[in-house]
Amino acid sequence: MAKQARAHATRESIVQAAAVVFSNQTYAQATLGEVLREAGVTQGALYFHFDSKQALAQEVIDRQHQLFLEAGKRLLDMPARGIPAMIALSRELASQITTSALVRAGLRLSTESADVFAETAKQPYEDWIAICELFVRRAMVEGDISSQHDASRVATFVIATFSGVQALSQARTHWADISDRLEEMWEFLLNGVRSQSAEADRPDIRALLRD
Amino acid sequence: MAKQARAHATRESIVQAAAVVFSNQTYAQATLGEVLREAGVTQGALYFHFDSKQALAQEVIDRQHQLFLEAGKRLLDMPARGIPAMIALSRELASQITTSALVRAGLRLSTESADVFAETAKQPYEDWIAICELFVRRAMVEGDISSQHDASRVATFVIATFSGVQALSQARTHWADISDRLEEMWEFLLNGVRSQSAEADRPDIRALLRD
Repeated sequence: MAKQARAHATRESIVQAAAVVFSNQTYAQATLGEVLREAGVTQGALYFHFDSKQALAQEVIDRQHQLFLEAGKRLLDMPARGIPAMIALSRELASQITTSALVRAGLRLSTESADVFAETAKQPYEDWIAICELFVRRAMVEGDISSQHDASRVATFVIATFSGVQALSQARTHWADISDRLEEMWEFLLNGVRSQSAEADRPDIRALLRD
Repeated sequence: MAKQARAHATRESIVQAAAVVFSNQTYAQATLGEVLREAGVTQGALYFHFDSKQALAQEVIDRQHQLFLEAGKRLLDMPARGIPAMIALSRELASQITTSALVRAGLRLSTESADVFAETAKQPYEDWIAICELFVRRAMVEGDISSQHDASRVATFVIATFSGVQALSQARTHWADISDRLEEMWEFLLNGVRSQSAEADRPDIRALLRD
């Protein structure tokens, strides 16, 4: 039992060290040697738990996704209205990005090195659209989001927008401006960017895209 | 002169072959051997023009960005209103994605393998935000976008949104649904997702993100 606990502690220290290494460097540049030094474990211990750099990076990605999903489920269980709950969730994710090396590492790996982790690249989007759709349906029942829209399409748009804002903030400022970008994202996403006076004169978007 | 023309033609056939290879496979999986076979040139010819897989991939990325920028500049030079011009531009980019292996390859390389091409990853965002800001300013003068907004922030949001929609469409359907996704993007981005009845009761987004 003590042996199992030790093995577990070693595995944890390896994953946490990997989070530090993969959050500060690209996947291609990062080496298992650096993870060993950061974790203070032997090569044998590392290979006992993870048989490659890719397997270790995949564990970091899976945990980051798990942390994000748990935040989503926590917010879903709270009795808040749909729109404020979605805003609170985006804030919680931004806060995880700012405070957790593991979250930053998972995001870097799954976006910047998506080719390496292509097998698991699609599922997080599906999970997030499904969660977001529950918030959107709640907001529709509450009258805050127009029921004329398709809830699944609204959810897809919200997730695409959050992904794009996150990626842009990552590329331009390494997430330093994520709070500002989220603020304008919600303002524009909920209310649109058109002027009130132009309301009566909506462009026929479908025609503009299809003619 | 004939020799120069031949060298130029060889270089072109290598770049077009690289577009086919890099659009169908991940950067890690693709090999220069496949590019050679696809182009029907010798290894010596390839290395005369490009000294590595990375240099060849970088050329594909640079050309894709150039094609996108040219579309942007073409639309800017036309006398259309700001909003319809932006919609037309997004349609033109979607059309390039659908029809051009070089464009698909450039997008795959610069997103899925962003870690390898990190040095050039930021500039396209800056170029696109600058171009988009010109359309937004035009739409503001025309009264279609509220002048209360900051044009640069609106442009940043539009580019983040387009990037996210493009990335999601790429990951989920290899761009098969890009037209549908663009349609809902413009609908929601211009008009917002909130119901009219909720208009009077706007949530204080800043407070929700900051408290």
